[in-house]
Formats: sequence, structure tokens, C-alpha cells
Amino acid sequence: MSKPIITLLTDFGLQDGYVASMKGAILSICPEANLVDITHEVPPQDIRFAAFVLHSVYTGFPRGTIHVVVVDPGVGTARKGIAIHTSDAVLVGPDNGVFSWILRMTPEYEARVLESTEYQRPQVSATFHGRDIFAPAAAHIGNGVPIELFGPSHMPFVAEWTVPRLTAGALHGEVIHIDRFGNAVTNIIAKDLERFSPRMEHFRVRAGGRDILGLSRTYGDHPPDTILALIGSCDHLEIAVGMGDCARKLGLEVEDPVTVTC
Amino acid sequence: MSKPIITLLTDFGLQDGYVASMKGAILSICPEANLVDITHEVPPQDIRFAAFVLHSVYTGFPRGTIHVVVVDPGVGTARKGIAIHTSDAVLVGPDNGVFSWILRMTPEYEARVLESTEYQRPQVSATFHGRDIFAPAAAHIGNGVPIELFGPSHMPFVAEWTVPRLTAGALHGEVIHIDRFGNAVTNIIAKDLERFSPRMEHFRVRAGGRDILGLSRTYGDHPPDTILALIGSCDHLEIAVGMGDCARKLGLEVEDPVTVTC
Amino acid sequence: MSKPIITLLTDFGLQDGYVASMKGAILSICPEANLVDITHEVPPQDIRFAAFVLHSVYTGFPRGTIHVVVVDPGVGTARKGIAIHTSDAVLVGPDNGVFSWILRMTPEYEARVLESTEYQRPQVSATFHGRDIFAPAAAHIGNGVPIELFGPSHMPFVAEWTVPRLTAGALHGEVIHIDRFGNAVTNIIAKDLERFSPRMEHFRVRAGGRDILGLSRTYGDHPPDTILALIGSCDHLEIAVGMGDCARKLGLEVEDPVTVTC
Repeated sequence: MSKPIITLLTDFGLQDGYVASMKGAILSICPEANLVDITHEVPPQDIRFAAFVLHSVYTGFPRGTIHVVVVDPGVGTARKGIAIHTSDAVLVGPDNGVFSWILRMTPEYEARVLESTEYQRPQVSATFHGRDIFAPAAAHIGNGVPIELFGPSHMPFVAEWTVPRLTAGALHGEVIHIDRFGNAVTNIIAKDLERFSPRMEHFRVRAGGRDILGLSRTYGDHPPDTILALIGSCDHLEIAVGMGDCARKLGLEVEDPVTVTC
Repeated sequence: MSKPIITLLTDFGLQDGYVASMKGAILSICPEANLVDITHEVPPQDIRFAAFVLHSVYTGFPRGTIHVVVVDPGVGTARKGIAIHTSDAVLVGPDNGVFSWILRMTPEYEARVLESTEYQRPQVSATFHGRDIFAPAAAHIGNGVPIELFGPSHMPFVAEWTVPRLTAGALHGEVIHIDRFGNAVTNIIAKDLERFSPRMEHFRVRAGGRDILGLSRTYGDHPPDTILALIGSCDHLEIAVGMGDCARKLGLEVEDPVTVTC
Repeated sequence: MSKPIITLLTDFGLQDGYVASMKGAILSICPEANLVDITHEVPPQDIRFAAFVLHSVYTGFPRGTIHVVVVDPGVGTARKGIAIHTSDAVLVGPDNGVFSWILRMTPEYEARVLESTEYQRPQVSATFHGRDIFAPAAAHIGNGVPIELFGPSHMPFVAEWTVPRLTAGALHGEVIHIDRFGNAVTNIIAKDLERFSPRMEHFRVRAGGRDILGLSRTYGDHPPDTILALIGSCDHLEIAVGMGDCARKLGLEVEDPVTVTC
């Protein structure tokens, strides 16, 4: 068996020692872990941002990768810590919606509550479950401990912002992420569009006060500065501008509505 | 023996090649090194900041971990480079106080001056001891070279800002660190409070012009916006605001006084 | 054989999942890869910046290291992707000048176009060659695939800003990089100065409207606030200020002229 890959995704930033504390905790239990940072620059407590970034890298990692997410406004409260086994990976983190995108796309999984103190730091602080519960859990999983030993089965929380609403003749979604290039990613995925209507060439996408007719295949299909709608690299409907910054041009922000009619 | 862990903590930032140069130097000597970044975003030449971050992660790493710190305003001057062997770890860096917190907490250690040119880069630049002296030293230690071979014994410098002052009926500390979430960490540790008085529920903590009664267990114990005092995840007294940025709310900065009375 | 070292240098920033997507792609093909970040904070599309940072770390890595650079304003256009084998390393990235410094210093190398689809992601996106072409290429090279299998020979582009101009009695260079401490690195290297004149103590360096007499050995040689010229840690002429920020003090920016007379 090759070395277990454990990725880390947090809102801890890179200036303090929080991320390193998690790494120390992991290496203390699983010295063979191959640690990979996803990002630690999630805006503080922004669960949506974390959920999307994890989802955007998820399928690119080798099968069996362990992803630890600590974006956790509810640390120290009643929210549960969980581990989820999917066919691709193991997810470890708080049950607050950070795994929503992956779970919406994943038909089968097994989720467990991180309850057994045997797999936690001897003294669990009330403020730093990343180091004391999540990192040790990931490390033990890296050592081969099955998630069934951590605690009882659990139905993890999937946030409602992953699901667009369908009304008579319209699919109502919203912007969930603005990427570095200014592309506005929506919560409408290719499968939603297929279910809505097979007549893709007749779609009218409304976003930022503009109407976009039809879906483009790539960013380069049209003259520069054209406003486009297309299915992006992780299967979401995106609003983009050829060679430009769409979010700035249309004033789009996260949570702005995007509507598809036909 | 498992692979030596070598951590790096600098004020080099992440935009230039300085950190990578140190990693290249380490891997050239000790290819098996498992490199872990603590942080490279220490404010330029801020020895206090570096000392606290190292201290905050130190006990969480496996025994024998080698920690290299390069926050070094005196590079090229007479300040010495040192290696320190404690029961937990090996510390490598300039003798300017960056190891103060750990040394205050550590009863026994052996420190040596990094003198022997045998364990340095063939050409030592006057400006980049991180790459030319500290990284090679860490790599050789990772290969099993005992620190006794580097140079003569040395009594390392411990800065005075690690020790709060006790006066009649009051414990006088100061803010030593503001973390990403705006929590203000002080130089008063749990042990100082225990020695000061066993009646923790009667503590009155004064900081930023406010009086806080009693210690809280976690950030989530009170309504949002409440100003709290609590023992944080590395055993220091912290001033925090539930779901908010304490340093901004109270205008707290590093070196601001924090006083505990009873 | 020890584990292949693969370094990454991009302008992707650390907030999104782009860098992690490249790492996932590499580890999926070459699980043994030892991944080292050079920097991901290159200013967007700043080829000069990337070229200098790579050059500054290049010789410090073990022989055979694979360096992947993705600073690629021309992604999706006709610019070629290349791999270059030098006696020290393998370079992978777009053929846009990012390897200019190394190629100026390197007498012999073999360069190939990354053409063979066998070593690319099954579906290559038009916008993310870092993940779909460059990362897989590096991973296959890490697995031992010779670059000759990737495509035809190629003469890579070397940018003109790597070479200072010599006129009667003067060496005309320019600032190519401002580092974190405000030191201004020029495109004049030690070898250029040696060729220009052996009388280093008589050099007069003109930069930002000031004349600096002679070269210093280190930043600490003079009283704080003194403006210095010195040969920096990677053999380039630098303008610096003892204990201060030179670029701010002199208003220096990249492309500003720096002239040496004698």
C-alpha cells in the first residue's frame, strides 16, 4: 500500500501555527502521511467557499485520499464532527455543510460521528477541534482504522444552497463562487439542466441583469468581451466573459440569483 | 528509524524563493527529510511573533522533530547561530530570543554554537544564513549528526517578555499575539494563574479598558459579541469576542497590558 | 533511486483549488513524488518575476529535480508547452521566457515540445494546462519517462531583459525584482561586474537618483538607513538599505535603470 494522502482545507490562514499544529498531530499518529494543503485562505467561517473548493479538487486526487476540512464556526457547540466514506475518498470535518457539494453528487456513502475518545487527543480543547479531533481522526484513518470504529451512523447535513429551485418554466439558482478569473460559478449543475429541458440551445440564462441565449462550449467560442454561459470544468453552470472578468463586468456576487428559462 | 521531520518558520513570506532555497539545501543533504512549514508570514523581523508561533505548535510534533527558525534581523552581525537539544526536539536558528517561550518552559537542554564550517554551505553568504548555515545544520542533524559536533556549549538568550509581573494582588501581563480571528493572546499562562490564585471563578481580567469577570470555557459559551477571557488552545490566557474580532473591538495590540486581579 | 522532487511555481495564489488540483494530478500518476512549492504568489502573468524566482532557487535543489512553472498568459493560444533537460534539472512549463535566466546561465540543454497526448490528461481543458498538461508531464518525467518521448526538439525563448548593456565606461542594467525586504535585485550578475572591471572598490552604482560608492559585504556593515550596493545571495547586484526598505526609500521599481561606472 502506498502512503496515505491527507489533505487539509481550513480558514486558519498561513500566519499562525494552527495548520502546523494539525500537521504535527497527524504526523505524531501517522508518520507516513503525505500531507497536501488544499487552501488555508478560506474567508473566515465561509462554509460555502470551503465546500466549493473541496468539490473542485476532489475528483483529481487518487482514490482513498483523506480530506480534512476545518471551517467550523460552531466549534465547541453541539454540532457534530463526522467522517464520511465515499467510493473515492474519506472526508473528515464538522457536520455543517462543508461536504454538501460532494454529498449531493455522491449516491452512496457511509457517515459516522467522531465520538470515540480513543481516536482523539487525550485532552480535547473546546476551541481547536482541528488539532484535537479532526487531525487525529484523519491520521488514524490513514493508519487503516475503519470509520465504523469512530461512532454511530449519521445522516450528514447537506446545505440547501446546493439545490436550485424549480418553478413553472424556470430553474432558479444562484452564484456560489467567484473564481480568480472573475467567472461566476452557480449552483446549477449539468444534470439539473438536463432534467429541466433537453433543448439546451434554447436556454435563456438571466444573471446580473443580462440575458444570455444558449450555452457556449468554451470561453474562446466568442469575441472578447462577450458574456457567456457555459458548463465549467467541474460541471457547474458558469457565467463568464471572453478574456475578461465577468463578476466585475456584471457586478455579480455570491448569492446573486441566476435563472434559466427555455 | 522513521524519516526526520524538519519544520521551517521564517519571515521570508511566500512570494520570493527564500523558503524554497532552504528546502533545496535541506533535501540536498538529507533527501529523506519530511519538510513541514510552520509559517513564513511572520511580520518582518518580529522575533516575538515567531517565538509565540513556534511555542504554540512545539509540543504537538513527534519527539525528535527539528525546528528551524529564521527570523533574523542580525544576520551578518556578531549574533550567534545555535542548535538546542531538548527532550522533545532540536531547535536551530539565531540566538536572538526566538526560542524564549520554549526555553522558559523547558528545564533541561543543551545548546551549541553553529561554528563548524564542515556542516555549512561551502560558501556562506553574509545575507542568507537560513540557506547557508541553518538549513544545512538541520539537514545534518536529520542525518544523525549530534549537535555536539557543531561547536562549543552556549547559554541561549531568553527574552524578558515571556514573564508576567506579580505585584500585590495583581498579575501584570501583556498581549503577545493577535491571531487571525482577532483573539488576543497574553503572556500569562495557565500555570501563572494557578499560582496566582485557585479562585479562578473570581478572576477579573482587565484589557483594552474593559473588565471581564471569570474565565469562559469556549468561544461559544456566550451570546455573540460578548467579551470573554479564556485559556486558549496552547494554555495562554486569551481575550476573545464570541463570533467576533476582539482585537478590533477593543483596539488591542501587541504589548498592551492585561491585568488579572481576584 | 530516491523519490523524485517536483517543485511548483505558479501565479495561481493560495485561495482557490488550482494548486491542489495540480498536486492531485501529479500524485495520481507519480505517488512517490516529493512535492515542494516554490511560490504561488507570482503577480498574475508576471513572467519576469517567475523567471527570477526560479533562477534564485534553481541551483540549490538536488540534481534531477523537476521544476514545473505555470505563469502562462498565453494559455489556449499557439504558445508551446515545453520540457527542458539541463545537467541540473528538468524544467516544465510554457515557452514564454520563464526559463530565461536559467537558459542564459546554462550552456547545454535539450528542449522538447509537450505534444504527445499519451502524457496528458484524457480531456485537456482550454484554460487549465497546469493540471492537464504540465502536471502530468512532470509526473511522467518523475516516473522515468525521457522528455524525448513528449515531442519534437525545440529552441526555447530567452527574454532580452536578462542581459545588461555595456557602453564606453558603463554597465547598464535594470531592476528585475523587489524582494519582501525591499531589496532591489538587478539583472547585473557578479560575472558581469568581474568582466567590466576588477576594481570593485571603485565601483559607483547609480540607482533611484543616488550614487553608491563601492560594494558592501553585508546588510549589517553600515549604520541603519545607509544605502548599499552588494552582491546578493544569488550572485546578482542588489541595492539595499541597512535595516530598511530600499525600494520604498528610493522609489525603485522593476525596470528602473541601474548603472555601474568605475
